[in-house]
Amino acid sequence: MARSDFKFFHDFRVRYSEIDAQGIVFNAHYLTYFDTAITEYLRRDEFDYSALVKETGCDFHLVKSLVNYEKPIPFDEDIEVGCRTGAIGNSSVTFILEIFKKGQEDRFANGEIIWVLTDQTTHKTVRVPDNIRNLIEKIESGQ
Amino acid sequence: MARSDFKFFHDFRVRYSEIDAQGIVFNAHYLTYFDTAITEYLRRDEFDYSALVKETGCDFHLVKSLVNYEKPIPFDEDIEVGCRTGAIGNSSVTFILEIFKKGQEDRFANGEIIWVLTDQTTHKTVRVPDNIRNLIEKIESGQ
Amino acid sequence: MARSDFKFFHDFRVRYSEIDAQGIVFNAHYLTYFDTAITEYLRRDEFDYSALVKETGCDFHLVKSLVNYEKPIPFDEDIEVGCRTGAIGNSSVTFILEIFKKGQEDRFANGEIIWVLTDQTTHKTVRVPDNIRNLIEKIESGQ
Amino acid sequence: MARSDFKFFHDFRVRYSEIDAQGIVFNAHYLTYFDTAITEYLRRDEFDYSALVKETGCDFHLVKSLVNYEKPIPFDEDIEVGCRTGAIGNSSVTFILEIFKKGQEDRFANGEIIWVLTDQTTHKTVRVPDNIRNLIEKIESGQ
Repeated sequence: MARSDFKFFHDFRVRYSEIDAQGIVFNAHYLTYFDTAITEYLRRDEFDYSALVKETGCDFHLVKSLVNYEKPIPFDEDIEVGCRTGAIGNSSVTFILEIFKKGQEDRFANGEIIWVLTDQTTHKTVRVPDNIRNLIEKIESGQ
Repeated sequence: MARSDFKFFHDFRVRYSEIDAQGIVFNAHYLTYFDTAITEYLRRDEFDYSALVKETGCDFHLVKSLVNYEKPIPFDEDIEVGCRTGAIGNSSVTFILEIFKKGQEDRFANGEIIWVLTDQTTHKTVRVPDNIRNLIEKIESGQ
Repeated sequence: MARSDFKFFHDFRVRYSEIDAQGIVFNAHYLTYFDTAITEYLRRDEFDYSALVKETGCDFHLVKSLVNYEKPIPFDEDIEVGCRTGAIGNSSVTFILEIFKKGQEDRFANGEIIWVLTDQTTHKTVRVPDNIRNLIEKIESGQ
Repeated sequence: MARSDFKFFHDFRVRYSEIDAQGIVFNAHYLTYFDTAITEYLRRDEFDYSALVKETGCDFHLVKSLVNYEKPIPFDEDIEVGCRTGAIGNSSVTFILEIFKKGQEDRFANGEIIWVLTDQTTHKTVRVPDNIRNLIEKIESGQ
C-alpha cells in the first residue's frame, strides 16, 4: 500500500500526553488516532451518525482492531492518518488505516478496524443500510 | 494534613501508559486517580449511585479540580490515594485527596474535587439528599 | 475574563475517546487540552524547548493545575483554548487558560497551570532565563 | 481457548475514565489493559526489566497488536486479563491475552501482542537472551 491508495487523510500533531517514557507514542493511542480518523472520514454534510442511531435503533460496535507498528512516532510529529473502506460485508465494515509522516511516503504504521452493525434492542447483527453503502461509495469515488 | 487525616485509601500501581517522556506520571492522570478513588470511597453495599441517578433524575457534575504536584511519581510506583469529604454544602460536596507512597508519610500530591448535584431535566442545582449526607457521615466516622 | 483577553488560541475538535458515559468530555482531558495549548502557545521559530533542556540542564515541572468546569463539552464540539501568561515569578510561570466554543464568547471552562523551572541535577528551582521572559513578552505583545 | 490455558491473570476494575458514551470500555483502553497485564506477568523478584535495558542497551518494541472484541465491558466491571507467551522467536516474543469476567469463563475479548528486541544504538533486532527465555519458561511452567 502507499499514500496514493487513500483519498482521505486526517492530520494530527502528536501531543505530549500521548508519548511514553521511550519518548514515542504509546501503543494504545494509535487506536485513538484510528477512531478519530474514521469519524472524520465519515463526516459528511449529508450524513448524521447520531440520527442513524436514533432513527434505526442500531449502532456500530468495533469487533476487531489490528495495528502493525512500523516505526516509532516521536513527540510533536506532524502525522496524517489515511483511511479507506476495505470491504463492506452484510453487517460489517472494514476500515484500512495507515499513518504517514505528513505529506510524505514515510509510513509509521498500518492497521485495520472492523465495525459490526447491531440492533441495540435485540443485540442481533443487522444489514448495513444502503445510505451508508452509498455514502462510502461516494467517499471512495472521491465525490 | 497527614495520612492520619484519612480513613479511606485506594491503591494504585502506576501503569506504563500513565507516564510521560520525563518518566513520571503525566499531570492529567492525577485526575483519573482522584476520580477512581472517589468512586471507591463512595462504594458501599447500602449505596447505589446508578439507582440515585435513575430514581431522582439528578446527577453530580464535577465543577472544580485542583491538584498541587509535590513530587514526581515514577513508573511502577505503589501509591495510595487518601480521600475524605471536606465539606457538604447545599448542593455541593468537596472531596479532599492526597497521594502517598504506599504505607508511608511521603506525599506526592494533594488536591480537591468539587461536585454539584444537578437536576438532569431542569439543569438546576439540587440539595444533596439526606441518604448521601448520612452515607458520608458514616464513612467519615469509620463505620 | 473574555475572549478578547487572549492573543493566542489553539483549536480542538472533541474526540470520541475523550467523552464519558455522560456524553461529555471527561474531566481529566481538560488538562490534556491545557497542556497541548501551552505547547502550541510557546511554539515559535526562534524558541526550541528541547534545546533549553539540553543546554541548561533545566526543565519545567508542573506544580499546580486548577480547572473550573462551567458547562459540559459534548462530543464533536469545535472548541478553542485561549492561553496567556498570567505572571512570571523568579522560577515560575503561571498560564491562564479558558475554553470557548469556537469563535464565540460562550465559555466552557477556565483554569490555571503553574510551571516551575528546576535544575535536573540539583533538583533546585532556577530563575526563568531572560530568553523565555523575552519570548513570552513578545507573544503577549502580539508580535 | 479457555481460562484453564492461563497460569497468570491480572485483575482490573473498569474505571469511569475508561468508558465511552456507549457506557462501555473504549476500544483503545484494551491495549492499556494488555500492556499492564504483560508488565505484571513479567514481574518477578529475579527479573529486572530496567536492568536489562541498562546492561544490554537493548529494549523491546511493540510491533503488533490485535484485539477481538467479543462482548462490551461495562463500567465498574471486575475483570481479569489472562496472559501467556504464545511463541518466542529469534528476536520476538508473542503474548496471548484474554479478558474474562473475574473468576468466570465468560470472555470479553482476546488478542495478541508481539514485541521485538532491538539494539537501541544500531536499531537492529537482537536475539532474545537466555535469561528471558528461561524466565518465561519458568512462568509458564507455573514455578
